Amino acid sequence: MTRVHTRAAIERALAGLDLVPAIEAGFVALSEGRANVPPVGELIVEKGEVHIKYGAIAGDDRYVVKVASGFYGNPARGLASGNGLMLLFDQETGVPTDVLLDEGHLTDMRTAAAGAVAAKHLAPRDGGPVGIVGTGVQARLQLRLLRGVVPCMHAVVWGRDPAKVARYRADMAAEGFEVVAARNAAELAAQCRLIVTTTPATAPLLTGAGIRPGTHITAIGSDTPHKQELDAAILARADRIVADSRAQALLRGEIHKALAAGVLEMARVVEIGEVIAGRAPGRTSPDQITVFDSTGVAVQDIKIAAAVAARLAG
Amino acid sequence: MTRVHTRAAIERALAGLDLVPAIEAGFVALSEGRANVPPVGELIVEKGEVHIKYGAIAGDDRYVVKVASGFYGNPARGLASGNGLMLLFDQETGVPTDVLLDEGHLTDMRTAAAGAVAAKHLAPRDGGPVGIVGTGVQARLQLRLLRGVVPCMHAVVWGRDPAKVARYRADMAAEGFEVVAARNAAELAAQCRLIVTTTPATAPLLTGAGIRPGTHITAIGSDTPHKQELDAAILARADRIVADSRAQALLRGEIHKALAAGVLEMARVVEIGEVIAGRAPGRTSPDQITVFDSTGVAVQDIKIAAAVAARLAG
Repeated sequence: MTRVHTRAAIERALAGLDLVPAIEAGFVALSEGRANVPPVGELIVEKGEVHIKYGAIAGDDRYVVKVASGFYGNPARGLASGNGLMLLFDQETGVPTDVLLDEGHLTDMRTAAAGAVAAKHLAPRDGGPVGIVGTGVQARLQLRLLRGVVPCMHAVVWGRDPAKVARYRADMAAEGFEVVAARNAAELAAQCRLIVTTTPATAPLLTGAGIRPGTHITAIGSDTPHKQELDAAILARADRIVADSRAQALLRGEIHKALAAGVLEMARVVEIGEVIAGRAPGRTSPDQITVFDSTGVAVQDIKIAAAVAARLAG
Repeated sequence: MTRVHTRAAIERALAGLDLVPAIEAGFVALSEGRANVPPVGELIVEKGEVHIKYGAIAGDDRYVVKVASGFYGNPARGLASGNGLMLLFDQETGVPTDVLLDEGHLTDMRTAAAGAVAAKHLAPRDGGPVGIVGTGVQARLQLRLLRGVVPCMHAVVWGRDPAKVARYRADMAAEGFEVVAARNAAELAAQCRLIVTTTPATAPLLTGAGIRPGTHITAIGSDTPHKQELDAAILARADRIVADSRAQALLRGEIHKALAAGVLEMARVVEIGEVIAGRAPGRTSPDQITVFDSTGVAVQDIKIAAAVAARLAG
């Protein structure tokens, strides 16, 4: 019998779930070559676009198909532009076991969980307040998910729209965070040694000179060939550069930009799955600058879907 | 709110639905270039294979994603090897509107409906008993769906396994059909001028010489580059050769085999959507031999899913 779960039920399940080990296991499977992830399917219709991501990890109980959409006229109708659902199937029989009607929330959560995984392995021990660049969904979720891995109840936020910054501070205060606003990204970088960038910027927000020794940056926003939040000089100067997927980093995100600028060589890039498994070094001294470049990989979808479905079943 | 429908509910909806106009509309949309059908996604896991078919017809309310699987160890566990589901989404917003947990039944039904569409446009007016080659699911559904379009209460069946033939005759008798068994395919061809082939054969079952003038053949079974039910000489000799999709007929099915044998040129092949729309001739005299080669196209999935969902909503 196929079980169908609403977003409300999925959110309740997430509340009791530690996503960090699930997402770590996904990254390790990817780096060890145990993930079978075919190319993304794409359907373009008049009002929007649809992406179909799917794959299986050898040895897992389930395979996962995710349908995610972006319809940019939706906000004018009072709907979120993004939507989506995930389907789980039994890897032994093909029987559909679960339909997760998450409306795209699991994609947001698995992205936020990647930030927590990166901070766990790369952030300095005492980084002071956490710096959050941006004021949207990921700016909120990243801070919320960091709670389980690093001290983060004090944060500094920077965003271009003062009204959104104010709303962000109020919303996060309601969750118990004390968030102050920086006047600009440089001021934020001067105060924080754990920085998470979460914007759709297409030109660098953080400059190389502004980053202090001992800083870890998780770059969430750039997931296409065109988006960029970090000056390539940051990657040129960083001691450790960590991708979610080396194959994907060649084509999109901050690493792609630094490679294109000629200031970075792929040989310097390791995968977070290698760091987690201890096969590549993460942070080895307090003064190192580390960068994690998140572009989003299907193993995150597979693992969050399986974790949520298992909790809903149990 | 996403509606979720079980196979039982879907079967009840199908009982009151005339699929012929829905599938006709799909074929016409395909032939008129209004269907956007990206390449099929494929995921191979240890115990089975999964195909993801998806697409949209311009002007329709919905787009459709179908996940279909074949796990060949399933029968040993008491499960069907095939499974599947279809998802419908609003073309204006991307909101998932319906999950059809049909277990692959809608794929079987849309395939059977294509046979009815072909018979409607190509079968001779009085073809005598209907000839059914094969004794499986399609052998049953083809006869059942023909009921709406041609006289078909008398049929002749041929299959290699006498026990399956006997079961087929009994099952169809329970539905009101009078089915006699032929000793071989040639005997069947000598008695029937509407023949439907439904087997996974990889070598021809029907020969060119055995087909009488005025016969229409619907070839359902061959949907890969390797399967073949009709001798290429039948296509060489036929007056009308009709594909569901010319693009697909180049790569798989009976037309592909006859092209490879050098006895057919693509210029002779028309699409069923062109015949339905009156832009290509169908049967124009009682003595013509016509062949419809079904390989299965995503517009059939889109249209059957939309028709069932609309009925379930209403």
